[in-house]
Amino acid sequence: MKVVVQKGLIRSGKIKTICEGLKKRILIIADDKVLSYAHLVTQEMNIPILTLKAQERLKTRKTKEKLENAMLTLRYDKETLLIGIGGGITTDICGFIAATYYRGIDFMLVPTTLLAMIDSAIGGKNGVNTLFGKNLIGTFYQPLYVFVDQEVLVTLPEKEKQNGMAEMMKYGLLFDEDILKMSLEKAIKRAIEIKMKIVEEDFRDVGKRQLLNFGHTIGHAVEKASNYKISHGQAIYFGMLVESFISYKLKFLSKTDFLKITALLPKKNKLRKITKENILEALKYDKKRKNNKVHCVLLKKIAKPLVVNAQYSHEIDEKIVQSALDEMLV
Amino acid sequence: MKVVVQKGLIRSGKIKTICEGLKKRILIIADDKVLSYAHLVTQEMNIPILTLKAQERLKTRKTKEKLENAMLTLRYDKETLLIGIGGGITTDICGFIAATYYRGIDFMLVPTTLLAMIDSAIGGKNGVNTLFGKNLIGTFYQPLYVFVDQEVLVTLPEKEKQNGMAEMMKYGLLFDEDILKMSLEKAIKRAIEIKMKIVEEDFRDVGKRQLLNFGHTIGHAVEKASNYKISHGQAIYFGMLVESFISYKLKFLSKTDFLKITALLPKKNKLRKITKENILEALKYDKKRKNNKVHCVLLKKIAKPLVVNAQYSHEIDEKIVQSALDEMLV
Repeated sequence: MKVVVQKGLIRSGKIKTICEGLKKRILIIADDKVLSYAHLVTQEMNIPILTLKAQERLKTRKTKEKLENAMLTLRYDKETLLIGIGGGITTDICGFIAATYYRGIDFMLVPTTLLAMIDSAIGGKNGVNTLFGKNLIGTFYQPLYVFVDQEVLVTLPEKEKQNGMAEMMKYGLLFDEDILKMSLEKAIKRAIEIKMKIVEEDFRDVGKRQLLNFGHTIGHAVEKASNYKISHGQAIYFGMLVESFISYKLKFLSKTDFLKITALLPKKNKLRKITKENILEALKYDKKRKNNKVHCVLLKKIAKPLVVNAQYSHEIDEKIVQSALDEMLV
Repeated sequence: MKVVVQKGLIRSGKIKTICEGLKKRILIIADDKVLSYAHLVTQEMNIPILTLKAQERLKTRKTKEKLENAMLTLRYDKETLLIGIGGGITTDICGFIAATYYRGIDFMLVPTTLLAMIDSAIGGKNGVNTLFGKNLIGTFYQPLYVFVDQEVLVTLPEKEKQNGMAEMMKYGLLFDEDILKMSLEKAIKRAIEIKMKIVEEDFRDVGKRQLLNFGHTIGHAVEKASNYKISHGQAIYFGMLVESFISYKLKFLSKTDFLKITALLPKKNKLRKITKENILEALKYDKKRKNNKVHCVLLKKIAKPLVVNAQYSHEIDEKIVQSALDEMLV
């Protein structure tokens, strides 16, 4: 996988040149909100564009099936190059389609949200949601290229930007405090570097990638419990808060560091209409669960995750989870 | 992937011992016709068994989704060991589920048809059908073990046995004429050896595996054109006949060898109610298609497939396909 980060990349025509070099039949699947970027990518090439509505509730096996059927109707075969353009929902669906269409076709991604640029589009994870939880069905499958053009962020809604910033903070809290002070442009590059390094190291040191789930055990459960009405960003901010609190309660993280993290997180972090019980129920279907127990990534310090016996994710007693939720939900 | 071939394996209790050694939560998905074998495998362990109706028209994304939802309802997580018991439809669906459930779980297969023993269960290909053709959606994903117990073949219907024999003949015509004269027991072992060798070599010599598609370009189209009413075996026998004829017409295969192949194929090989037009239409969605052209494996001799410039599958002019169908459908 190659990642090209360049401001103005989309209107430069470079993507078109790279795609045409592959001599495959090209198809675009784009979030209908960023159709104008899809047209810029195609640069007047005569390429079919399929659109989707990028909503968590539509990130389903059904939507995947509909898009596949549209591709089959257009007679795309094994020699297809699929380009996915959009945020994380789009890149996840496109990656999953590419992984299973004719048992695997070439694909590239043009992430158009901050979150997708630094997280969803990098590293080959894909998937769709089920009624039982997020991303429970999917595969690992690498794109040939990821094209990151920060210029598209000017049209990104503020809420979407927050989703990305939460993930950016995750990289900071896990690996590199400096990232929290950089310019957005530098922070994007640094975050992609970190994610790619972790994904690569994971091949030698299996499981390392789990570190990236910091904040996500609780975060995903909150998203699910809210029926995806709470944004990913807000859920992950809350997840990092709870999981930092658990790290502190279990005496891995100092109180100073815990308070520092609390201060770094956005103030307006109260979750309305979500109860502890909702979250605990959602946790029962968490993908990171092992032996039917909750597992979390924990912190030792800021920029230093806890690793015990080469384990990156740790079994947490349900009572600890309950009491952490009790304290943090107030 | 390990393949254990042993008569009486299922009732020996060995499968149970190997499975329990993995310390995972076990689930069985079995064709409802072989439920009794599933019970023998579990040996009174308290293991949930999900059943499916093994029919080509039900080998769909929908069936996969239903089984996944049943697994999610039973709270199976990443630490699941899935055992698939049945013929090729069952092993294909189970493999595909294993490949995408929580982005990949461990699985084992107990093939109960001759075809699944020597073909479907070996080599990691999986998939489901769509209205546009067979196995168009799927992945490559290896089982940990395949357990082959010839004892189950005593309950196999004659038609199912024919499906396996057609595939057995394919190995003979492609690689080893002797296989056509061996005892069934020896032929099964030899066929599995051949398939495993090809799959392994394919990692170094990408594309070699395509040889196994001999008879399948036309064969799959015939199955599809008949709406899967014609059996796989009959379709593949016809596919091998047509593709041998094309090999002969293009002057790669001698007339002597072509006539010898004709003599080896079952006599009752006429396809009723299928027209050339039906087959040509079905060929448009063939997975082995490249650049929108029909591709076939061809023979140079019996037990010697044609390889040109390291290509194992060859573009065939549509006119040649048409005239071969004209001659062979009579």
